[in-house]
Amino acid sequence: MTHPMFARHQAMLDRAVQAVTDRGYWSPFSENPSPKVYGETAMADGRAAFDAYCGTEFQLDQPGCTGTAGSERSPYGVPINIRYPRCSGEALIEASKAARGSLQALGPQGRVGALLEALVRLNQRSFEIAHAVMFTTGQGWMMAFQAGAAHAQDRALEAVAYAWREMSGIPAEAHWEKPQGKNPALVLKKRYEIVGRGTALVIGCGTFPTWNTYPGLFAALATGNPVIVKPHRNAILPAAITVRVLREVLAEAGADPNAVLLAVDDSRELTRFLATHKAVKSIDFTGSNSFGNWLIENCRQAQVYAELAGVNNVVIESTDDYKGMLRNLAFTLSLYSGQMCTTTQAILVPAGGIDTDQGHKSYDEVAADLGRSIDKLLADPAVASAVLGCIQSSDTLGRLDEASRWGDVVLASQPVAHPEYPEATVRTPVLLKCDAADEAAYMEERFGPIAFVVRTPDAAAAIALSERITTEHGALTVGAYTAKPDFAQQVITATQRAGVALSLNLTGGVYVNQSAAYSDYHGTGANPSANASYADSAFVANRFRVIQHRFAV
Amino acid sequence: MTHPMFARHQAMLDRAVQAVTDRGYWSPFSENPSPKVYGETAMADGRAAFDAYCGTEFQLDQPGCTGTAGSERSPYGVPINIRYPRCSGEALIEASKAARGSLQALGPQGRVGALLEALVRLNQRSFEIAHAVMFTTGQGWMMAFQAGAAHAQDRALEAVAYAWREMSGIPAEAHWEKPQGKNPALVLKKRYEIVGRGTALVIGCGTFPTWNTYPGLFAALATGNPVIVKPHRNAILPAAITVRVLREVLAEAGADPNAVLLAVDDSRELTRFLATHKAVKSIDFTGSNSFGNWLIENCRQAQVYAELAGVNNVVIESTDDYKGMLRNLAFTLSLYSGQMCTTTQAILVPAGGIDTDQGHKSYDEVAADLGRSIDKLLADPAVASAVLGCIQSSDTLGRLDEASRWGDVVLASQPVAHPEYPEATVRTPVLLKCDAADEAAYMEERFGPIAFVVRTPDAAAAIALSERITTEHGALTVGAYTAKPDFAQQVITATQRAGVALSLNLTGGVYVNQSAAYSDYHGTGANPSANASYADSAFVANRFRVIQHRFAV
Repeated sequence: MTHPMFARHQAMLDRAVQAVTDRGYWSPFSENPSPKVYGETAMADGRAAFDAYCGTEFQLDQPGCTGTAGSERSPYGVPINIRYPRCSGEALIEASKAARGSLQALGPQGRVGALLEALVRLNQRSFEIAHAVMFTTGQGWMMAFQAGAAHAQDRALEAVAYAWREMSGIPAEAHWEKPQGKNPALVLKKRYEIVGRGTALVIGCGTFPTWNTYPGLFAALATGNPVIVKPHRNAILPAAITVRVLREVLAEAGADPNAVLLAVDDSRELTRFLATHKAVKSIDFTGSNSFGNWLIENCRQAQVYAELAGVNNVVIESTDDYKGMLRNLAFTLSLYSGQMCTTTQAILVPAGGIDTDQGHKSYDEVAADLGRSIDKLLADPAVASAVLGCIQSSDTLGRLDEASRWGDVVLASQPVAHPEYPEATVRTPVLLKCDAADEAAYMEERFGPIAFVVRTPDAAAAIALSERITTEHGALTVGAYTAKPDFAQQVITATQRAGVALSLNLTGGVYVNQSAAYSDYHGTGANPSANASYADSAFVANRFRVIQHRFAV
Repeated sequence: MTHPMFARHQAMLDRAVQAVTDRGYWSPFSENPSPKVYGETAMADGRAAFDAYCGTEFQLDQPGCTGTAGSERSPYGVPINIRYPRCSGEALIEASKAARGSLQALGPQGRVGALLEALVRLNQRSFEIAHAVMFTTGQGWMMAFQAGAAHAQDRALEAVAYAWREMSGIPAEAHWEKPQGKNPALVLKKRYEIVGRGTALVIGCGTFPTWNTYPGLFAALATGNPVIVKPHRNAILPAAITVRVLREVLAEAGADPNAVLLAVDDSRELTRFLATHKAVKSIDFTGSNSFGNWLIENCRQAQVYAELAGVNNVVIESTDDYKGMLRNLAFTLSLYSGQMCTTTQAILVPAGGIDTDQGHKSYDEVAADLGRSIDKLLADPAVASAVLGCIQSSDTLGRLDEASRWGDVVLASQPVAHPEYPEATVRTPVLLKCDAADEAAYMEERFGPIAFVVRTPDAAAAIALSERITTEHGALTVGAYTAKPDFAQQVITATQRAGVALSLNLTGGVYVNQSAAYSDYHGTGANPSANASYADSAFVANRFRVIQHRFAV
């Protein structure tokens, strides 16, 4: 019989499966933080819920707690001071192993039903989660609501849809009847059980604690793997709220709530202990190449799904909408102060300049005009602080302060006074010029609001450089601007060789650094910036095994 | 427009996709080597084709050939003396990389169509391939025809069906339209390209050079990866014939024939060079744990799909068909002299004996009766040599000669004179008794016709031992005999925990060491005997990536 939570949400699931198959626009979770959608008091309630957490002990009924940990600092200067339960690594592993059986017993329908129920409840708490994301990551409010709540819920649902599509292709049982000519047929009954691989570790990042955590978290649970969530030390609250909701729903669904556990510690040892434990069979990680590659090298017992860094780049050959192109690029470089793994870092422009609907523009003009567009976008401090958000880490601030050494400054970074939060660390982007030969400057990731307009010998050299950057250093996004179909085809072919998603001639309200669930694959797994994609069959199919038994009838 | 080869075989493909979904019995390739099916002269033609290869240079128009290699020795004592083109590793890699684009250009339909056409042609050459398998591996004729030809073709088609199911779930393009309230919607067109990961290396084994090679070979090609096939040094011909057919068909389909290459060398260096080359992105391997684990440890640039060894075991608690059980086990232990990765090695019997339809049988009686059943099955030398085939390697012969040191001999191995091939190395199985405590004896794989009847304290201890053997040493198959439903359930639960396929109470014409394409998963990937399964979504989904581009319309 159908699990009640599955029955309740099956229509949404079916629609999500259709969405990942036709890949048109769809979402069951409104990205519009409007009272009409979420209720008149949603905003006040969400803020109040966040405030209520601050300065308290976050309640999670987890086993083996030995005290509390957590020291989140808000880039907005808002005091957080939430203490989270600290549990020993051994206790987390043992509780996780003990919970595995109950997760398997739920079966694919029960697990998927529970996850859909959890997503609906998380969506109802979007304002609470958005505030938690905003104040821990420094994102502006609108991004925190959209990327941190609605879009993260979409990415989770997408992963669940893929998991369901794979699991539902496996029958619970089969009747096998092999004819034997004149003799009686050979007849067997076979039963197939979907079994998770074992404990999954999901390691979050400091900038997108839900959007980058939900795909692995929900994919692992849907396929029968208990999960230990290890959030970034400065963005724990959004993960903690999520874990609590999942534990509640799983318990209601009839599973052991320890199928989802939160791992918080002020030392880094816990992460290494968990990541290398033989019971941990998969690791989902978003963050630095150094730790990501350490995981891949050292956690051989686990399948590692790693979203790392790269040098995202844009090739400009020509455009028939010069102003639209500049506006679009200016917004991409400014949004959340370039602290997205998809933000463009290198803009490749031919030394001879480009043809545009505004006439020919020299390389220097393109750089200067882009600088002016950023200036114009951020002229109003209210708009600027809303678009930029805050600088999330002191490392990023440090890179920004010394950025001028890497090229000729086209536009210098400026502090912005936040109208609401006087202690917020808000900075405008720095735009630099350099030559393609100055590879040391632009050919490693400089996370944050730091971008280069790179002078290439010609447009063909720009394509070749883009392909080499992507192949050698990785890229999550590549953009290109050209009015010439044959040039566009050359870029398409080059990005297919290099294994990176391409956005062509974006001049309107879609940006190269944005990817839409159900439609855009985030990362390809085909270049060094990531070894997996959100989401595709490969992201879920290897997280479970099919164990059969057969007998004569 | 549909690729003509795809159109020609689409009905077979659709039926294969249905078969892997409902998992009932089906096959388009007859396992019956009868003139009615394959033609009156098929047998003579197949043998003549094999004889025509012997003593000649095998023609493959491959690049970078530097001479010939190959020194296959037939366990039947038949002279082979075929010389195969030896190509340098660099030349193979370069040719493979150059062929990748043409494979991608074929698209999923073109690739799948070509592979289906190749399978139909391989099926027409089943007698030729069966002789090649028989004389290189030492399999008996019927097994060589069934496992080496028809069933291998089934496993290949199964892998293609999975690859097609995954790839066909990805649209070529999408229309994405996101409403913006009163403003015009955001509209993008998106195109999705399926791109292989890169060169695939497929390493064959000496006992099943087609059955264990085809799944990886066909899965990799279907998903857009050029393949280099490195057969076992003593079973090259079946792979070489297959490679030649594939090269012909791919060329006809419009691809570069170097999308499939044969790697033959008398030294082991070539394999290590290819396996560790950065252009090699996947490795399919069947063989020893030592080399398989070396590949996993050292070929970090590639996804390794490894079918290794284990200690397959059977738990006997009771039976209501004692004679059927003994007959079934006797055949399993004898078939191809136990040289199957699925052959039972350890038969776990309670010290107190078992209840049967023939009354209670003591542990010693069960062992003795099993020995008698093997004796009886192999009494007629013609039957014996047909069932046993030959001992494939001197290593196996060595293990057989010293087997008596590992336990009390219940049944000694005897040489059998082959009626047709006087130089054939034919041996009957050795059956040993030992105590569960003698783990050094039975708890490592002793490849070949060597089996142990292991005395366990009781039936519950037998389940626990089976689970521990599987978890620690791996197993591709576990069997159990019991007339008690609750005991059966305990074994089912234990094998799900251990991650191994279970066959319950097989007493008829199906054997624990046999797995049927489209229905039985061969290997689970959930225990040390294999990290992947033939075939499931995980076997294909990670062999390709989706590279998209999007643009405003």
